[in-house]
Amino acid sequence: MKIPIEISARHIHLSKEDLEKLFGKNETLIPLKKLSQPGEFASDKTVDLINKDKKLLHVRVLGPLRKNSQAEISVTDSYSLKLSPLPKIRVSGDIADTTEILVKGEKSSIKIPCIIAKRHLHLSEKEAKSLKLKNNQEVSIKISGERGVIFNEVTTRISEKFRAAVHLDTDEGNAAGISGKTFGELVK
Amino acid sequence: MKIPIEISARHIHLSKEDLEKLFGKNETLIPLKKLSQPGEFASDKTVDLINKDKKLLHVRVLGPLRKNSQAEISVTDSYSLKLSPLPKIRVSGDIADTTEILVKGEKSSIKIPCIIAKRHLHLSEKEAKSLKLKNNQEVSIKISGERGVIFNEVTTRISEKFRAAVHLDTDEGNAAGISGKTFGELVK
Repeated sequence: MKIPIEISARHIHLSKEDLEKLFGKNETLIPLKKLSQPGEFASDKTVDLINKDKKLLHVRVLGPLRKNSQAEISVTDSYSLKLSPLPKIRVSGDIADTTEILVKGEKSSIKIPCIIAKRHLHLSEKEAKSLKLKNNQEVSIKISGERGVIFNEVTTRISEKFRAAVHLDTDEGNAAGISGKTFGELVK
Repeated sequence: MKIPIEISARHIHLSKEDLEKLFGKNETLIPLKKLSQPGEFASDKTVDLINKDKKLLHVRVLGPLRKNSQAEISVTDSYSLKLSPLPKIRVSGDIADTTEILVKGEKSSIKIPCIIAKRHLHLSEKEAKSLKLKNNQEVSIKISGERGVIFNEVTTRISEKFRAAVHLDTDEGNAAGISGKTFGELVK
């Protein structure tokens, strides 16, 4: 089965409460661009991520709003920001006990948990069933080409809201030589 | 066989002629730190890599001097510099027909060829023989851990001057979750 490979650049998710702290009372996220997973979108808003004198500017806020805020950055970003210790490698939403990062919006700055996204495979329940995969399983994805690679430790994330796509971060995408539309192969 | 994994950050190699253009007549490279391959060293000199208004500052010049100058950067670096087209993915020394980059030294600036280093496995002739490997062959290296990965398309580079080590760039190292001393396994 050929599965689309998608690269997530650094971004943040916000709770309603944190959105209002950063951008003002009754602010909302306006969708600018649909993402591949149904309902997910890049919003009109960006923030700066700050650690002492180091900054990453214009980092996109993704929508919709979530229960908890989190920043997702690459290892390269973590070194650029001189974050220490490095953020934990986690699936989205698992934000206990990881490094925090200062986020600057239009109205104020707040600290939110920061993770390095663990690579994962989104699947609908139907797709998972036909592949005989369960949620939260580790699988391997092969990507061919000049920088061909097999990514092990790819976590399945199964939901009726999802559809088949492997999500990698920019370090992983660049290490695999991915640019433009790419497909991977489930190898176990 | 366990093989040490080493991560190469962005760097440049210079010819004698280009060293003198950048730093002045009769300048030499003074070794600051030995690298793992016998005879190779990080020198006392750094340059800036420039593309229009984008810069990567304090990029290390490695020694000894070579016949031809070349810059080696990551895909992430290429995007930071907004280089277009992207440099070619090449083994060191294969600099025909790749993107050039402006290099600024203490005395002047010159353009030199720029590549993204193709991942490779250094071996001495004796090591290669015991592994039944020939020069310029493609092999796979498995790295275990939280971001476990199998890198395919790893080119063997065999010489009496070399000793066993896999060289990856920073994107590849970060994608594989490498920090500190790490070993890989030859899988074919």
